[in-house]
Amino acid sequence: MPLVRIAVMAGKPASHRAAVGDAVHRAMVETLNVPAKDRFQILGELAQGDLVYDPSYLDIPRTDGLVMVQITLNAGRTVEMKKAFYAKAAEYIHAAAGVRKEDVLISLVEVTKENWSFGNGIAQYA
Amino acid sequence: MPLVRIAVMAGKPASHRAAVGDAVHRAMVETLNVPAKDRFQILGELAQGDLVYDPSYLDIPRTDGLVMVQITLNAGRTVEMKKAFYAKAAEYIHAAAGVRKEDVLISLVEVTKENWSFGNGIAQYA
Amino acid sequence: MPLVRIAVMAGKPASHRAAVGDAVHRAMVETLNVPAKDRFQILGELAQGDLVYDPSYLDIPRTDGLVMVQITLNAGRTVEMKKAFYAKAAEYIHAAAGVRKEDVLISLVEVTKENWSFGNGIAQYA
Repeated sequence: MPLVRIAVMAGKPASHRAAVGDAVHRAMVETLNVPAKDRFQILGELAQGDLVYDPSYLDIPRTDGLVMVQITLNAGRTVEMKKAFYAKAAEYIHAAAGVRKEDVLISLVEVTKENWSFGNGIAQYA
Repeated sequence: MPLVRIAVMAGKPASHRAAVGDAVHRAMVETLNVPAKDRFQILGELAQGDLVYDPSYLDIPRTDGLVMVQITLNAGRTVEMKKAFYAKAAEYIHAAAGVRKEDVLISLVEVTKENWSFGNGIAQYA
Repeated sequence: MPLVRIAVMAGKPASHRAAVGDAVHRAMVETLNVPAKDRFQILGELAQGDLVYDPSYLDIPRTDGLVMVQITLNAGRTVEMKKAFYAKAAEYIHAAAGVRKEDVLISLVEVTKENWSFGNGIAQYA
C-alpha cells in the first residue's frame, strides 16, 4: 500500500473519479517505485461547501474542478522522486480526466514499513 | 496547506460545518503561523453510529454535538503553539457554532515540507 | 485517542460496520495498551468503484468484503505489538463480522503525544 484518498466536488460521474485514481496510480508506479498491483484507494465526492479551497493561494488559480489527493506511504522516497511524482500526477490527471493542473493538490503522509497489514493479520513488510 | 478534515454528526445544516471550518482556520492563522489564504478543508457529516466516541474518556463529558478535527500540517510547531491552537480552536468553535468545548476533539498529523503540491505539479515548499 | 477510520463497501447494514469497529477496538485494547474508554472512530461505506483494491497483491485474494482500517495513534508501540494487533484485529473482525481475514487491510499513522486534544481545548497528553 500506499493508501490513496481522493476527493472531488460532486456533480461528475463516478468515471471521473476513477480516471483520476488511475492517473494517480500510474504516476506512483512510474516515479515512486510502487508495484503495479499495489493499489488501494478511497474515492469520494463532496458537496459544494464541504470541499473548501482557497482560489488563489500561492498565486495558483483554483476552481471547483479541484482534486484533493492524500497519500499514506512508506518513508524513503527522495525529494526528487516526490517532485517527479507531483509532475506526473498533474500531467496524467489532466490528460485522463480533464482536470486543470492548477487544480491538482497533493499531500503525502509518510509512515514506517511495519505500519501496514495487507490481509491475513500479518505485517507483510516488517 | 494544512489539510483539515472535519466530521460532525448528521442533522445540522451545512452552515454549521462551515462555521466550524471558519473557526478552525482562524485559530490556525492566529497560533500556528498559517497564512490566511492557506485554507484547504474537507467537511462532512456522519450518521449516528458512524461517528463513534466515548462519552467520558479522561472525564470529559461528550455529546452528539461532537466535532472531530484532523489536521495534516508541516512539522515544526512547538508544544506551546499547539496548546495555544487547541485553546483558540475550542473557543472559536464554541463561539461561532455553539459547540461545547468538551465536544471539540483535535488530532494533528505532521509531515515534511516537500510532502505538498499545491497545484501545477510542483512542490512549492521544497 | 487513537482515531480510527474504517471503510467498507456499501450494501451491508450499519451493524456490520459497528461490529468491525468493536473488533478493532477490542484488538487495540488487548495489544496496544489503548484504554478501554479511549474509543473514537469514523465509520463509513463506499459505493462500488469508490473503494478500490487490488484483488491479489502479495498473493492475498481479496473480495468486495474488504475492510480498510486506518488508525492515527501515538508512536511508541514496538513491531511485536503491531504484529500482535494485526493478528487480533483480523481474528476479531472475522469472528464478529464474518469478514475474511484476507480482506482486512490496516494502515497505522503515528504521531507524538502533544498532537491531541480530547476536548476543552487542552492537550491532555502533553
